[in-house]
Amino acid sequence: MKLYSYWRSSASWRVRTALAYKGLSYDYVPVHLTRDGGEQHKEAYREKNPMRQVPLLELDDGRTLAQSVAILEYLEEVFPEPPLLPRDPYLRGKVRQLVEVVNAGIQPFQNLATTTRLRQLGVDPDAWVKEWIRRGLEAFEREVAQTAGRFCVGDSPTFADVVLVPQCYSSRRFGVDLTPYENILKIEKNCLELDAFRRAHPEAQPDAER
Amino acid sequence: MKLYSYWRSSASWRVRTALAYKGLSYDYVPVHLTRDGGEQHKEAYREKNPMRQVPLLELDDGRTLAQSVAILEYLEEVFPEPPLLPRDPYLRGKVRQLVEVVNAGIQPFQNLATTTRLRQLGVDPDAWVKEWIRRGLEAFEREVAQTAGRFCVGDSPTFADVVLVPQCYSSRRFGVDLTPYENILKIEKNCLELDAFRRAHPEAQPDAER
Repeated sequence: MKLYSYWRSSASWRVRTALAYKGLSYDYVPVHLTRDGGEQHKEAYREKNPMRQVPLLELDDGRTLAQSVAILEYLEEVFPEPPLLPRDPYLRGKVRQLVEVVNAGIQPFQNLATTTRLRQLGVDPDAWVKEWIRRGLEAFEREVAQTAGRFCVGDSPTFADVVLVPQCYSSRRFGVDLTPYENILKIEKNCLELDAFRRAHPEAQPDAER
Repeated sequence: MKLYSYWRSSASWRVRTALAYKGLSYDYVPVHLTRDGGEQHKEAYREKNPMRQVPLLELDDGRTLAQSVAILEYLEEVFPEPPLLPRDPYLRGKVRQLVEVVNAGIQPFQNLATTTRLRQLGVDPDAWVKEWIRRGLEAFEREVAQTAGRFCVGDSPTFADVVLVPQCYSSRRFGVDLTPYENILKIEKNCLELDAFRRAHPEAQPDAER
């Protein structure tokens, strides 16, 4: 498989973590999101993903799948071991709820296309982004207090952890103080003790810039 | 089950469609998103859903699940017939990709909390919303051209259709011309011939306002 990825993209990081956790090998294809106005906007890439975003997974037969949440679900169905979803349907629902709190509740407000557009409209994106991050993390913290063990839902990593760790990193980049979110910080620490999460880290990627 | 819903919320509409399609009965609990500054912000509701959004599904034992995509997946797992996902893992992935193009790629930019905040920042939300809708629908149209039969993926309704129909309605409310999106319009028409989609329509809800 090939993964089209950008080192600092939090959605790409999610997929890298799942691939590493499941022990799947893949070719890393870097897509630079800012150089030359962004390689994701070039027609060759847009043909593969009309949303002009990373990540994109290309299967061995050339078929492609975009949107990190769709890719996570696909990997779980085709490579079920080790699992990244619990067995109980309600707990699976809670994992997916936490995922969407970040994926639809925070990420769209902080991504590059959004902050670029806001700047063009004369709005300071930093204050805007911080506000949506805090709103989402506050909800995440309250929800996770009811389901967490060592990880977001119980004592094994799930999609919720896969999504949370990159969000913590992005939140710090935007200057959000995470100390009010005790459960989140404890879970992040437990995740980063696992090899899969560390190998998926932006700074461990071939296209990382210092 | 109880569904906390607002008639014109497109995320609530998604869940209403899935419930109707699967023949599940439920109590409808209206949450008025604008009256008195929004009932979703009241502490009693916030206890149930810290994101302060509808929909919210309350199970018979009182446990709750939020985020429409998480609720759709839960319903599919617990009430698999009739299905709203294909059997093939890759096509399931394509359905979920289309879902996220709307759920993370359009909806966060058009929802009430976002447009309210933009107005406070001095930005006209109408132009902003139209831009994100067009960007998302253009990607959806290109993707769906490769997978559609009578519906978004093949000849049976899936989550992708469940999410698309409310998005068409919202897009028109924001004044977006849908005529360039031929596949989308054809699929919407086929969906609205089905009883489940019509029964879930905002104007068929008990809290509908004329």
